[in-house]
Amino acid sequence: MSSQSKLAIVRTGGVCVPQGFRSAGVVAGIKASGNPDLALIVSDADASVAGTFTTNRAAAAPVIVSKELAASGNARGVVVNSGCANACTGKQGYADAVEMADQAASALGAAPGSILVCSTGLIGSLLPMDKVRAGIAAAAADLSDDDEAVMKAIMTTDTKPKRSAVEHSDGWRLGGICKGAGMIAPNMATMLAFITTDAVVDSRALQSALSEIVEVTFNSVTIDGDKSTNDTVLAFANGASGVEASIDDLVIAMHMVSRSLAEQIVADGEGATKFVRVRVRGAVHEEDARAAARSIAESSLVKTALYGNDPNWGRIAAAIGNAGVEFEFEKLTISLNGVDLLSEGTPAAPETLRRLRGSLVHEPEVTIVCDLFLGTGIAEILTTDLSPEYVKLNAHYET
Amino acid sequence: MSSQSKLAIVRTGGVCVPQGFRSAGVVAGIKASGNPDLALIVSDADASVAGTFTTNRAAAAPVIVSKELAASGNARGVVVNSGCANACTGKQGYADAVEMADQAASALGAAPGSILVCSTGLIGSLLPMDKVRAGIAAAAADLSDDDEAVMKAIMTTDTKPKRSAVEHSDGWRLGGICKGAGMIAPNMATMLAFITTDAVVDSRALQSALSEIVEVTFNSVTIDGDKSTNDTVLAFANGASGVEASIDDLVIAMHMVSRSLAEQIVADGEGATKFVRVRVRGAVHEEDARAAARSIAESSLVKTALYGNDPNWGRIAAAIGNAGVEFEFEKLTISLNGVDLLSEGTPAAPETLRRLRGSLVHEPEVTIVCDLFLGTGIAEILTTDLSPEYVKLNAHYET
Repeated sequence: MSSQSKLAIVRTGGVCVPQGFRSAGVVAGIKASGNPDLALIVSDADASVAGTFTTNRAAAAPVIVSKELAASGNARGVVVNSGCANACTGKQGYADAVEMADQAASALGAAPGSILVCSTGLIGSLLPMDKVRAGIAAAAADLSDDDEAVMKAIMTTDTKPKRSAVEHSDGWRLGGICKGAGMIAPNMATMLAFITTDAVVDSRALQSALSEIVEVTFNSVTIDGDKSTNDTVLAFANGASGVEASIDDLVIAMHMVSRSLAEQIVADGEGATKFVRVRVRGAVHEEDARAAARSIAESSLVKTALYGNDPNWGRIAAAIGNAGVEFEFEKLTISLNGVDLLSEGTPAAPETLRRLRGSLVHEPEVTIVCDLFLGTGIAEILTTDLSPEYVKLNAHYET
Repeated sequence: MSSQSKLAIVRTGGVCVPQGFRSAGVVAGIKASGNPDLALIVSDADASVAGTFTTNRAAAAPVIVSKELAASGNARGVVVNSGCANACTGKQGYADAVEMADQAASALGAAPGSILVCSTGLIGSLLPMDKVRAGIAAAAADLSDDDEAVMKAIMTTDTKPKRSAVEHSDGWRLGGICKGAGMIAPNMATMLAFITTDAVVDSRALQSALSEIVEVTFNSVTIDGDKSTNDTVLAFANGASGVEASIDDLVIAMHMVSRSLAEQIVADGEGATKFVRVRVRGAVHEEDARAAARSIAESSLVKTALYGNDPNWGRIAAAIGNAGVEFEFEKLTISLNGVDLLSEGTPAAPETLRRLRGSLVHEPEVTIVCDLFLGTGIAEILTTDLSPEYVKLNAHYET
């Protein structure tokens, strides 16, 4: 039996699907809208912890604090607020992040330093600490094994809550929730994801599995090429099932859940009209494939063409040319939704492109496949088109 | 007397300001619009030649041919067509580029291989060679020392012709024309620039001057981050003034003309509502300053904020954070049109930002200055804002 067939998708549910995890989401008043904005995800017992964090050098205070806390390899959970990123906030911001983590640990009766902290929202404002303190107390009193509330409390510009979970035939489970790098207001658009499992996994195996899947799931999503100051993925393993997970099965379970969450992020890109998969194969090696796919997915010209239902292979070829990777135009083959636009350097007939343009109008999903015919490197990046709506929403976000 | 004060700006004129250069621009019928689309720039006598070419690996056929021809260090001029880029056209495209150069040399009675070739326009179509041949003959019969016609014949989506020239007190002159990476349809938006001088300069000095100024002029312009398959800058020096130029004076003259042309390209970005200068100083070294300035200038979030008249320092700081350069948030200072948005990590008062937002509505030029206070590295990049119009124009260009 292959690893994948031992894993079944759990239809509804996220971080509370694994045993021994509870969560809460409450209105603390950080968001002016009055929507839920403070969340807790907590394991009943001590858990292994792993994390990956933004590479943006302007990393926010909670990122720095959580990195420090995660280094021990053990934690009980995480406190999260939305509405304020606590980024670019200097020493006071750092002190606030430390206090937020301490308050949460104390409210939960957990050891100091055992609760990590994440923030998402506007850059450059200090946290309203009174509201945060009261919110933590309220959330701690409201823990349950339902994850509806926690999903909503971590949202900023997301229009839909996002979760996914799987169950292994040996009896352990793995679940996750996330919020996306929505297109409306990416300066509020931290990508946060939280993964829980009740499998028995030590923190090194957990970190290694997380590091392996992040590149091909969350890091393969690009909306506008900007990395947030707050991006964080955390994984907790509390061993409550009593079943040890093999590293292979753990990686596959984590990949399934993370891949689903990443696709939900792209599908929820507001201002976007198309869900776009960019696959590059036949590159000299995987890094080249990834660079080429990213260059296509981040090209404003390719993205505006997709918005206009224009199967413009010239822009795609030029984006590959800009990626700095090995390729030979004479071998290049580009297809879009299964229709060849370019076959080993020869363009499709104009009628083919016209017909495709007509059918793209009704097509919310686009898959671009580029074959370089040079080697075995493959990669996939998920993105969206670029619409006038995106520009308007980003231009007028604060007004 | 400093080098700069020995150089006077020539009010009107471009490539024909230096002695012994003539040009022509005619309607060959390559453009469906019936606008001029075939141009010649020719020196009466043999000239030193230098060039810089696109780094896009999908370089067009004329780029490959001109690179080969320029390697000799000598040439008589260049033939240019607009309306068709002759890019991604395989072996036939290469043969067409060679033939176009040969035809032009023959029509001008010049030695084979002494006329270079450039193309700009749609990617992926073959040149209509009948029209090209007839156009070359017509242009060769129409050479004059006026550069109105040549400026127009190299345009694609540019709305204004672009030229600049200077005169040295010793009696030599240097002039240039260019077409821009317009925002309407950057897959037609090759940046082509041609510089002529009648100073006595050997091809090595000419190449070294050109390489020195390209990075801080044409390569410091970014509209959408995509490099064209056809970008080319060529310089010709025919020595007709009989005056030798010092390398310092040559670099300064070339910098003045190229800088003016680069600014004209940015000012002509259609769909753009603002001309944006991004200056970074105090970086550890120049490469860091350039990387930070480019990251800001290419950030969709910064550019949409500028369109919305939003002095959003958080997006600027996050873009610096994404550039992978040394910086400390506590030292970071960001100003916009002279108003400090962030002073050594401390944000301006909300009233200041509100007032600035109000005044930006009426301001077509924006200068962002970021000081990292770490070293002496400085750089400047020119760009535009990102408007809904840009997206619409690029999405519906072919429809």
